[in-house]
Amino acid sequence: MRIGFLGGTGVEAKGLALRLAAAGQAVTLGSRAADRAQAAAEMCNSILGRTLIFGTSNREMLSATELVFLTVPFSQAVAAVEDARPLLSGSHVLVDVTVPMTFRSGHAEYLDRAGESNSEVIARRLPDGVPLAAAFKTIPAAVLSNLEYPLNCDVFVCSDTEEAARIVMNVAGTIPTLRPLYCGPLKMARTIERMTVLAVELNRIHKKRGARYRIEGI
Amino acid sequence: MRIGFLGGTGVEAKGLALRLAAAGQAVTLGSRAADRAQAAAEMCNSILGRTLIFGTSNREMLSATELVFLTVPFSQAVAAVEDARPLLSGSHVLVDVTVPMTFRSGHAEYLDRAGESNSEVIARRLPDGVPLAAAFKTIPAAVLSNLEYPLNCDVFVCSDTEEAARIVMNVAGTIPTLRPLYCGPLKMARTIERMTVLAVELNRIHKKRGARYRIEGI
Repeated sequence: MRIGFLGGTGVEAKGLALRLAAAGQAVTLGSRAADRAQAAAEMCNSILGRTLIFGTSNREMLSATELVFLTVPFSQAVAAVEDARPLLSGSHVLVDVTVPMTFRSGHAEYLDRAGESNSEVIARRLPDGVPLAAAFKTIPAAVLSNLEYPLNCDVFVCSDTEEAARIVMNVAGTIPTLRPLYCGPLKMARTIERMTVLAVELNRIHKKRGARYRIEGI
Repeated sequence: MRIGFLGGTGVEAKGLALRLAAAGQAVTLGSRAADRAQAAAEMCNSILGRTLIFGTSNREMLSATELVFLTVPFSQAVAAVEDARPLLSGSHVLVDVTVPMTFRSGHAEYLDRAGESNSEVIARRLPDGVPLAAAFKTIPAAVLSNLEYPLNCDVFVCSDTEEAARIVMNVAGTIPTLRPLYCGPLKMARTIERMTVLAVELNRIHKKRGARYRIEGI
């Protein structure tokens, strides 16, 4: 399963790409501008010490990959999916990592979308037969980017398509010190997106950068 | 600081009372019927092997304690607070542990209260000057009840009154293997209540009983 990033030049994309490439996955970063994706890939490869990650246009990336992480800023997610729509097919599985969040007087706040999660909003914009899973929403980019640093946390995966969740869980499970946990249907993203905001606030309150979740008892 | 339970005959109350009494706190269980509270206290004391917990009417309990855990079922919380209202004063701190949740086709679902948490709804019913903190919402009763079992998790505490949060954190911090984490204002309970529903679903999916949260990186 080849892995792509739609909007692959941000910090979360690069961190996740590094972890997946280091775990032996074939990774391609996509961007609207191919040269920006190439520059991001080069930066990742210099950290890896090997050329494991490629960069190209979102269009080229979509034609060459099956598992596609949506890693644009949350406010651009719907537009990015609309742009990609003609190129998406039933051979793709999308993974939404976005969290709708804003900062007010220095505090992180969840942007409630009339009770729905960003993942549910995005799922409705996809062509029929293109499944979406929500995952990796709670794993801080700062932690992903430092390959020497053990993740020691869980990644929450939810989807209305069992097969999509299974594929994402399998890929996530190749990253050492990370445990994939299936959480049920896509609407569970309402909770998981809010948990990211809580983690950001815990970082602020406790002056840290890497707050992330681990479930005890499972 | 003497600790009471308003509606102290349920499993969450008894579990929490056991942990607090074992940690050296003075604990009184309250109930509308004093004899039911006494029976619950006797059950707890037989587990502890010592008479550390007392049971009495909610009225007597409120006159003898300062830190009061609200441990009625979530749907009775507002009524319980209305009943207790004439007996509550600025010398009390209330701790809301309730989570509005229902089960539909075997799945736990969060009951959204027009965007607000149950804690915020309850806070509005309290007399002026009686502070409320939300805490212990995510700690499973099954885990609390088994004193031999290490908690190994975090308890999320939020409140609009810094002093109330501090008092609850100090008391929670006396329980071994449990770490109190301050999460900010009371509205953070919107996230924490949902996290309880996620934990219940994780238990169902993975056939466990003790799913609970731990923050890595803090």
